[in-house]
Amino acid sequence: MLTTIAFDGDDTLWHNERHFAATQERFEALLRPYAGDLDIHDRLYWTEKRNLAVFGYGIKGFTLSMVETALEITQHRIDGDAIAQILRWGREMLEQPVEPLPDVRETLEALRGNYHLMVITKGDLFDQENKIARSGLADLFAQVEIVSEKNDETYRDILSRAGTTPESFLMVGNSLRSDILPVLALGARAVHIEYEITWAHEDAETPADAAGRFWHLDHISALPALVRRLDAQDPMLRS
Amino acid sequence: MLTTIAFDGDDTLWHNERHFAATQERFEALLRPYAGDLDIHDRLYWTEKRNLAVFGYGIKGFTLSMVETALEITQHRIDGDAIAQILRWGREMLEQPVEPLPDVRETLEALRGNYHLMVITKGDLFDQENKIARSGLADLFAQVEIVSEKNDETYRDILSRAGTTPESFLMVGNSLRSDILPVLALGARAVHIEYEITWAHEDAETPADAAGRFWHLDHISALPALVRRLDAQDPMLRS
Repeated sequence: MLTTIAFDGDDTLWHNERHFAATQERFEALLRPYAGDLDIHDRLYWTEKRNLAVFGYGIKGFTLSMVETALEITQHRIDGDAIAQILRWGREMLEQPVEPLPDVRETLEALRGNYHLMVITKGDLFDQENKIARSGLADLFAQVEIVSEKNDETYRDILSRAGTTPESFLMVGNSLRSDILPVLALGARAVHIEYEITWAHEDAETPADAAGRFWHLDHISALPALVRRLDAQDPMLRS
Repeated sequence: MLTTIAFDGDDTLWHNERHFAATQERFEALLRPYAGDLDIHDRLYWTEKRNLAVFGYGIKGFTLSMVETALEITQHRIDGDAIAQILRWGREMLEQPVEPLPDVRETLEALRGNYHLMVITKGDLFDQENKIARSGLADLFAQVEIVSEKNDETYRDILSRAGTTPESFLMVGNSLRSDILPVLALGARAVHIEYEITWAHEDAETPADAAGRFWHLDHISALPALVRRLDAQDPMLRS
């Protein structure tokens, strides 16, 4: 019996990756004159990957990775104006308005009467708290969980603290790696809604062996109908 | 009746501020040639204060504030080698071994059999999780709470989630502003143990009107005796 529906934040409830992508484009333009035929995008990605173990996810770490990549690519010849520009981009991202994706509010409003609604979002604590507040969606959720990484253990802890079993838990998100695979591994159900851009780090193979526990939706507005279908099936599954 | 004892992390359980102070000294030496009679320490502090509302607490924000201050003080004339040096200091701080303060482990071991022990620490989620893990103290705590700010609301939420009342809660920490004042405001009890250095931002007036609910200790090793005294008093207070 489904009792709890949890949503990823970035790129599931509100736009996020497009802000990173826009900043990356500006970063590439800034460094182009120094870079020869270097793949700037790729260099930044590998700096980010390398730094994840020290910085974790989030805009502050991304900003530090941009500065580091700029120094590397230019062999420290980048000037102070350019560094200051990178810092301003980081700050702009942190202060960006948080724009819910289309139909998110309506979908949450349709579900909240019958389910315990949660946000489970990954990244920088301070930034994510601010985003939830700025999204205007905070009042629709019974519980907010901000975590540093989304793996099997994270979800197991959250379910245990919420007093929820995997059978009664459904996760909705745009990242196969973070929102879908670890949730299916616990035996819970998951809905994948792709965003317009996926950060390479979040890419993963679609799981093959989770029939009846995993769905793709093109749009979040289709979620209430799916949930009604699941609820109608549940008594049969249990019998 | 005391059931729950919560400890601040940085500078209560392990050394922290001394790493910031050491980095600040190196930062001042790096910028001294550019700074004339500017107070570099003061400039960095005000950059940090200004950035708290966007960055929150933590080493990544501190590193970005160092870069920003270096650009400002040198009017963007700082060179790439110096910026790279600042980034390395930030990374070193993030990777620094976490050294528990003297007698911390023994004190926690003496208390854990009779009380629900918690860490309530403020700052960067990823960094604080790593610090708790690296401290070797994680197994001594029943609950870990990492928060972005320590105010009345934060403590109210944590107590409510832990199912604890203010009467049964004692907070132990080095910051009057973050560990003591908001806890006393809720009607709970608090123990202040000063660290060798206090960041100016955490300074506050000692509360005057919390007789019987607020204590200073010179050292954490005196905590078990204080707690025994409180427990012995409690029945009388309730009668």
